[in-house]
Formats: sequence, C-alpha cells, structure tokens
Amino acid sequence: MSNHLDPVELAQALIAAPSISPATGSVFDVLEAALTPLGFTVERFIDGIEPDGPVENLLAVRAGKGPVHFGFAGHLDVVPPGVGWTSDAFVPEIRGDLLYGRGAVDMKGAIASFVAAAAATPAEAGTISLIITGDEEGPAIFGTRALMEHMDARGVRPDMIVVGEPTSVNRLGDMVKIGRRGSVNIWIDVPGTQGHVAYPHLADNPIPKLVRILAAIDAVSLDAGTDWFQPSNIEFTDIEVGNGATNVIPASARARLSIRFNDQHRGADLVAMVERLAQDVEPLAKVVGRISGEAFLTPPGELSGLVAEAIHAETDLMPEMSTTGGTSDARFLHALCPVVEFGLTNATMHKLDEAVAVDDLHKLTAIYRGILMRAFL
Amino acid sequence: MSNHLDPVELAQALIAAPSISPATGSVFDVLEAALTPLGFTVERFIDGIEPDGPVENLLAVRAGKGPVHFGFAGHLDVVPPGVGWTSDAFVPEIRGDLLYGRGAVDMKGAIASFVAAAAATPAEAGTISLIITGDEEGPAIFGTRALMEHMDARGVRPDMIVVGEPTSVNRLGDMVKIGRRGSVNIWIDVPGTQGHVAYPHLADNPIPKLVRILAAIDAVSLDAGTDWFQPSNIEFTDIEVGNGATNVIPASARARLSIRFNDQHRGADLVAMVERLAQDVEPLAKVVGRISGEAFLTPPGELSGLVAEAIHAETDLMPEMSTTGGTSDARFLHALCPVVEFGLTNATMHKLDEAVAVDDLHKLTAIYRGILMRAFL
Repeated sequence: MSNHLDPVELAQALIAAPSISPATGSVFDVLEAALTPLGFTVERFIDGIEPDGPVENLLAVRAGKGPVHFGFAGHLDVVPPGVGWTSDAFVPEIRGDLLYGRGAVDMKGAIASFVAAAAATPAEAGTISLIITGDEEGPAIFGTRALMEHMDARGVRPDMIVVGEPTSVNRLGDMVKIGRRGSVNIWIDVPGTQGHVAYPHLADNPIPKLVRILAAIDAVSLDAGTDWFQPSNIEFTDIEVGNGATNVIPASARARLSIRFNDQHRGADLVAMVERLAQDVEPLAKVVGRISGEAFLTPPGELSGLVAEAIHAETDLMPEMSTTGGTSDARFLHALCPVVEFGLTNATMHKLDEAVAVDDLHKLTAIYRGILMRAFL
Repeated sequence: MSNHLDPVELAQALIAAPSISPATGSVFDVLEAALTPLGFTVERFIDGIEPDGPVENLLAVRAGKGPVHFGFAGHLDVVPPGVGWTSDAFVPEIRGDLLYGRGAVDMKGAIASFVAAAAATPAEAGTISLIITGDEEGPAIFGTRALMEHMDARGVRPDMIVVGEPTSVNRLGDMVKIGRRGSVNIWIDVPGTQGHVAYPHLADNPIPKLVRILAAIDAVSLDAGTDWFQPSNIEFTDIEVGNGATNVIPASARARLSIRFNDQHRGADLVAMVERLAQDVEPLAKVVGRISGEAFLTPPGELSGLVAEAIHAETDLMPEMSTTGGTSDARFLHALCPVVEFGLTNATMHKLDEAVAVDDLHKLTAIYRGILMRAFL
C-alpha cells in the first residue's frame, strides 16, 4: 500500500507552527498527525530545562517486511526570523514559484518531503524511521543525542540515515555532504605577576609568553587535507588582557582559538597539543577546550551511491560529494550507521524571506522516494 | 646678610594648604610670603583650563653679586591623600621624630628646605631662582614647561639646577639622580577582515599578524645599558581584540606597549622602529606613539660633584649616582643646564601617613646651603 501526500501542503502546515529553538508542541502535533495515518508509530518526549530546553523530540517508526531499516533525520526548530520579511515569516505564502516562510529550506520542507516519500513507498518494502528533534539550531544538548539514547533503549537501529539539511547550493541535487569537519574552541590563560613598567624585574609579564605560545601554534600545520576533506584550520578568535593602565604590567593574558578539523584528528588530541605548546612556554598556562563536534566521514560507498543515483534519476545532476561547511546533527548520528546529508538549496537559509521552490519540494520527495526504493531493493 | 628660617615651620604651613594637582592659590601664597622678606622677586601666573589646569606656577629670583646663577626646582602640588590616614593629611602633625602630612617628602619639605637654605646664604654670594610648579604629579602640560617659557621670556637662565624630588632611599643622602630614562607608550592597530571561522578564505585574521609583530618586537634588544643607565626595556601592556563570538574571525586587533629607554634612544626613533616592524608584517598596520619624556643624563661632573660633597659634609654618606625610577620635571629642565635631583627619603611618598623626619628637614637645609656655597665659590 502507498498513499499520496502533498509535501507542499505539509510544508505549509509545518511553517505555520512557529518553532524557534528550542521547539516543542504544535509543530510536532502537525507532523504526528501526518505520520499516524501512514502507519507510523510515533513517540514524543520532552527533555531539558531553560535555557537549553525544554526540547521536544519525535521518533516515528513504520516497520516493513524487508530486512533494511532506513532513517530520515532532521529538525523542526528554526532560527529566529529577524526583522524585514516581505510577508510574515510564520505565515506560509506562495508567490510565483516559491513558498516563503521560516524553515522553508532549513528544514521543514525536507521533513515534508520525508513524509511524502514514505507515503509514496509501499509499507512492506522496508522499515522507515523519522528521527526529528526540536533543537538542532541551538545548543543541541537535549536534541538528537537524547533521541539516540531513546532509540537505543527501544532497539531502533537504522542501517543508514539521510539527514535532510539543505546541502544543495545552486540547484537541487548539486551537492551531498558525506562528512563534516569537527570543531573545537580552546582557551589559553597565561598567568603573570602584575607590576609597574618602570620596575619589570619585580613583575612577570604574561603577554610575551602568550605571544610565544600563539606564534608556536601559528607555526603548526595540522595536515594538507585528504581526498575528502580540506586541510584542518586553526583560527585565533580573541585575545583579552584588559589592562587599562599604560604604566602597568598586567597580571594575566588570555587567548581563544577555533580549530575546524578533518578526520585526521580528534578534538581531545588537538586540545592536548595546544596545552603542550602552551606549557612548553609557561608551565602554569591553563588550557581549556570545548569540543562542538568530532569530524566524521561516511566514505563514498553504498549509501552515497544510491543517493547519487536517485538524484541523477530525477535531476540529471551528478552531485558533488562534499565535507565543507559547518556542523550538523550528522556529527552525532554517524555513530549509529553510515550517514549522508542531502536536502534543499541553502541560499536563503537563516536569512530574511527564506523560500523554497515549490517544484523542488516535489522533486525532493521523488528523490527521497528513489533513495528508499533503491535502499529496499 | 643672611637670615634664619625654620624649614619645619614652613613645611607645616605648606602642608596645611591643600594642593592636589593641579594646584593654585593658597599654597603659593604661603611660599610667596616666605620668599619676599628674603629679597626674592616673586612672579606667579596661572595657565591652562580643566581638566589639565588651571595650574599655578611661581618663579622667584634673588639676584646676587657673584656670576653664578643657581636654580632650585620643584612642585607644590601633591597626589590625593587616599583614605586611612592616622591624622588628617592636610593638618601637619609631629608625632615623635616625624612630621606627617601629604607632601611632607614629595615635596613641600624640600621646598621649605630650599627657602631655609636661601635664607641662610648671603644674598650677595650669587643669584638664586626657585622654579616651582603646581602640576608635576598630573599631566604636567601647563607646569614646568610653561615656567621655562616664562623664564626664557624674562631672560632667567640658571647655570645649574637641583630638583628637590625625594631621591633618598634608606637614609637622607644615599642617592642622587643624575638622569632619568625616557618613556613612550605605543599603540599598534592591525586591521583585518571579519568572517566566519568555517570560511577563513573569505576573511583576513588580524591576530596572527599581530602575534608576528609582537614576536618581532619581543626579539628586539635595544641596548645592554650604559655606564649610567640600565638597559632600555620594552613591556607589552595590553592586547585588545574584543571579539565575543567563538565562530567569528575578528576585524581588528590592537596592542599597547611601554618602552622605558636610556639616552641611547629618542622616543620618535623607537616609535619609528615599532612602525617598521609592524608594517613589515602588515603594511596597513597603524602605529601611534605618545612620548612622556625623553631620556636625559647629566654626566657626573661639577654639579653632581658639589652635591655629593655637600651631602658627605652633612651625613658622611657618599651618594649613589643613579638614573633609576620614573620620570620627573628634570626631563624638561635638563634642556636649560646641568640638572640633578636630590631630596628627602621616598619610602612614604604617595602613601598613607606620608612623613618626614624633622631632623632630615634641618639636614636637607644644611645640604642645600652647602650646595649653594660650593656653587658660588
């Protein structure tokens, strides 16, 4: 059995339910109401407290007869609309070929296409899960990670996952993400002893030490890139001394850096490297790292191959397999199984007048259905 | 003719006239009233507006018959008393051997000794000037420099000058200053192009450039010191980026440094050197210097010799000839003639319960008188 479900109508209904991160409530009601008639078992739960929560998460599973379990993952939360929209960001409006509204491409439109693709796929062909969070755009502490714990407790184990982030650049289908760089922020604190500039022997200036530490870090080349990743990159993002007095040697100096790294590295190793370089100069330097996500790669293979075939069948494009850009929840999900990301064009995401081509919603539905059918073969 | 004048009484009267920088008025009335009966011609004028003024300055000259013109220079302004004095900072009080009050050593006590020494010196022996400002502790914009213009206009040209700053360390007479280091503050601004850390090719991070500039400056050794000066010294005093966002490459970075330099250097040359090092790394770097004072040295010779002799005659000490410490108005006066600084012990200057040994006021008077008599020989 398969059904027809219009992804444009569902996208409109999802956009009409405002859901700035962290999201709960009505937008999940809309999705549940669409999934239940298609035979999905829907579980919803709310996690976390302010300011990073509460976050609603939804896990929907439709068990098929075939051995393959395919997951679609995504988020119903959106970034704040900002001021200056032509029409209300939370009142979906079709003007010309485009459907306008916050979340149109990132990524309520893709979730509508997940559902429409599942509707158009025979239920017996294979098991389909929708793994949908209400906090991907925010700190994501109570989002996909909580969903994964829930899935583990329920024994829900997809064999492969497509995350519906808007990966297309100029035309729907021109880019698939097969990995993402990792990201870590690192703070370096160098202590010193305050004093008067006229009597430097009575003080211990932390700034020259910090300069030597940063020069040592600046000289590091992490790698030259890989077949699938650009070179890892270190950026200094801040230095803070905060000494207003021209005749005072300051008591401490602090720097912050951001490393975006490929799968040659792990965040903790990079923090340890920075700590080693800092403490080589000043043993009392303190280094603290905060890892936003590890690098991950799903090397080109079965999953990316069938995604590319499905794209090519609908668009005649051969998608570029890329690892560029920021992080997404794929950084968590790749622990479960092969993961790739594919979705709508990203030109208007996070911007005023976010919009999706109505035709792209139909095409994306066809591509997602094509992926399912190929996975279930 | 010579007179007796009690330096302790005059010091008390000067302390009792509050005169936080910039000073005008009653403290100058007290000094003028002491000088006029001794045969001094007193001129007073007020210069400047808020916040650096108004500043009162006083020039007193007593023409003698001998060919030598000796100048005493100093300041009647004081630093704020702060909170926590045992007795009122502006009510002079003798407890035990000490006279307490703001300015007791820095330097109303020395000015009282100038006057008492002049009183005890025959008027015909030589010409004596008192060059007294109301702003040495502040920005000194309308202080000694204005006095020097006034002296130039009047044709008042001392052959040598003693500045009565509190140069003694442990015992009255143990140290004379024959020079001071110069001082310059320098700001370095490195421009960049803001951007997202995930897309560094679209941005231009100013921090690595600033780090390279500071490393180049840190590697500079200005000199190894001279017979009379310690080595010139560069201290970084601040770095400011002010970028709160961990994922943003900042648009600019700024550093500040302070150079205390000996007479091997001029402030403008040091600013030019820093500018060259900065622009070697980033041609658009902006470097701004503010010179607080040039280095000066009165090499050991006639003036320091007769000061040392006078000290030795009264104290049995042979003073150390030093160029250490911060700046003083000697940085300006050395343009006129040989200048040395000698005065009371500095242990309590700028502190709570500033105090001078009553006996030191008498001894300092005798030393200043000994200097005059030797200069006039």
